[in-house]
Amino acid sequence: MKRRSVLGSVAAGGVAAAGLAAPAIAQGVIEWNMVMPWPRGTPGVGVNAERFAARVTEMSGGRLAIKLYAAGELVPPFEGLDAVSSGTADLGHAPPYFWVGKAPVLNYFTGIPFGLTATELAAWFQYGGALELWQEIYKEFNVVPFFAGSSGIQAGGWFREPINSLADLEGLKFRIAGLGGEVMRRLGVNTVILPPGEISPALLSGAVDAVEWIGPWNDRAFGLQKVAKYYYNPSFHEPGPGLEIIVNQDRWNELTPDLQAIIRAAASATAFDTLADFTYNNIEAFQPLLAEAGIEARMWPEDVTDAMARETWNVLADLAATDEFTGRVHASFMAFLEKCDFYAQSFEIPMLQLRQRALALR
Amino acid sequence: MKRRSVLGSVAAGGVAAAGLAAPAIAQGVIEWNMVMPWPRGTPGVGVNAERFAARVTEMSGGRLAIKLYAAGELVPPFEGLDAVSSGTADLGHAPPYFWVGKAPVLNYFTGIPFGLTATELAAWFQYGGALELWQEIYKEFNVVPFFAGSSGIQAGGWFREPINSLADLEGLKFRIAGLGGEVMRRLGVNTVILPPGEISPALLSGAVDAVEWIGPWNDRAFGLQKVAKYYYNPSFHEPGPGLEIIVNQDRWNELTPDLQAIIRAAASATAFDTLADFTYNNIEAFQPLLAEAGIEARMWPEDVTDAMARETWNVLADLAATDEFTGRVHASFMAFLEKCDFYAQSFEIPMLQLRQRALALR
Repeated sequence: MKRRSVLGSVAAGGVAAAGLAAPAIAQGVIEWNMVMPWPRGTPGVGVNAERFAARVTEMSGGRLAIKLYAAGELVPPFEGLDAVSSGTADLGHAPPYFWVGKAPVLNYFTGIPFGLTATELAAWFQYGGALELWQEIYKEFNVVPFFAGSSGIQAGGWFREPINSLADLEGLKFRIAGLGGEVMRRLGVNTVILPPGEISPALLSGAVDAVEWIGPWNDRAFGLQKVAKYYYNPSFHEPGPGLEIIVNQDRWNELTPDLQAIIRAAASATAFDTLADFTYNNIEAFQPLLAEAGIEARMWPEDVTDAMARETWNVLADLAATDEFTGRVHASFMAFLEKCDFYAQSFEIPMLQLRQRALALR
Repeated sequence: MKRRSVLGSVAAGGVAAAGLAAPAIAQGVIEWNMVMPWPRGTPGVGVNAERFAARVTEMSGGRLAIKLYAAGELVPPFEGLDAVSSGTADLGHAPPYFWVGKAPVLNYFTGIPFGLTATELAAWFQYGGALELWQEIYKEFNVVPFFAGSSGIQAGGWFREPINSLADLEGLKFRIAGLGGEVMRRLGVNTVILPPGEISPALLSGAVDAVEWIGPWNDRAFGLQKVAKYYYNPSFHEPGPGLEIIVNQDRWNELTPDLQAIIRAAASATAFDTLADFTYNNIEAFQPLLAEAGIEARMWPEDVTDAMARETWNVLADLAATDEFTGRVHASFMAFLEKCDFYAQSFEIPMLQLRQRALALR
């Protein structure tokens, strides 16, 4: 499928504002196909991709009209990068780690276990040099990337039986994605990948013993609390996973500066909205989720988190050794992560602890 | 000064993208004056207001051209709301609490002591009903508000002598702004308001004993570490203060939908960028700041934080009693704050603590 340039009669938006009648001249209308790996209407990820498309169409006064295809409508969910790279689609929305099979370094641009939170990841992208590194690797795929937000700190997972010590992980069948899955595999877990629609049924049927999905908002929508009673938080492996907008490089080059600026700002506005959306809805969903299902929020046992940590550094050492470029991205990520950790000890952690204490004094 | 609509010859940006020659028709160009209370080039706040203006001009292909006036260039810093309200300026950038003299309820839209963090505040604005409440109060001032980000968790302040207990606050001359100042006043502090340019000299001369400004990045730029050696963190009173873009209501109504969409997205993109900018630069500045000046990061003593907390709830009870509307905003803020606090205990706090432990195990 190729990009289609269609001549239409959409009037330039600014004219009416200046009090003139809009001239009925022929204007160029660009129609772009956008793909996402989410079913239409998926809360958080899907809805914010839809808002991005609507925002670009609206800001351009219809001169750049984006038609959005949900999972499977134009290409299968895991073929988004291929589609945008080849021009089958003009742009796409996804988490970068969907394409780690093509370039393992993309793990860092989504986030790593015990890594950067959503806001820290945004800081690294926009001001810490990550965007430039990301553009460098995506140039090989003929796409231009933009950071498009995060789902925030994810939930650790739903377990049919409690995890009381490291021994309870041995042989456990656990649906878990990404680098966290590799860490778990090295700890003796039987890790499984399931598409979203099969997660809840697999837990219900006992085909798996445990699953992790996103957070209270999306987990509750899946009804996971009706199947498993042990909810471990937070996720050790996804402290703030990133999302992307990727644009075909040739299509990008053809845009005028105003339309490029619109895409760039729409991605940042989507980044802002996506995190606000997940933050609001996870916070609103958490207490009702616990209350309605008689769930007790649990923390991981200490020997489990320590083992997760040690294996995380082993997994990352292997990942960083992939090639020179991956090693460079690893070094950039870890240097900033260390500073974030130091800073959080004087700012985020004591602030949230002080607030908890203060609220108890009302 | 009035808004000027000027007819120019800026070509519509989308035309070239469709491969057509740009028609040399007359296009409407709107020129808007924007005010901000910051000196030009002020890191974080001023620079991100400048980026907003540039972004709107660029996205509109010059059809909506924003001319930015820094502090005092068009109106004095504390007259921004008046200027936008009357149409002397078309839009402005500021923290909403600059106008609490006109409407005390605006405190909530900036944030309160022990209140919402930057991300939680964004969630409350975009999805928790705060934007609608804010629009309601600003309608009385003939302006339309947009959330434009936050500086994140601020620093507690620089003290010439250590604060070892509540008694050390008695009679202390402390430059501190906002509701936090009122809390401190009730604890016996001699609070002082100083314009930014006088903060460092006043601390140096001994005219004040302590000052709070923004965070490590801006504090370091002011050289506060050269004057006072006791750095208390975090700020109890500014866990994530909000910033605004306000637009004159009549000017807003005259915009076409595409230009309205551009303003709306530019504000959200600015919100995203502003927090990323402060987050990155505060984190980068903190360790060098401590190291170069031999500063030890300190936490507030427990009796001090408990007293701050009790007085905060007293101050807020008085504020909420201002009128029915303020009471409604108070109730909305506090209901969401309680849920955020509960959520942080299972997500943010343990995540950051787990990460700290994990990094120590490398």
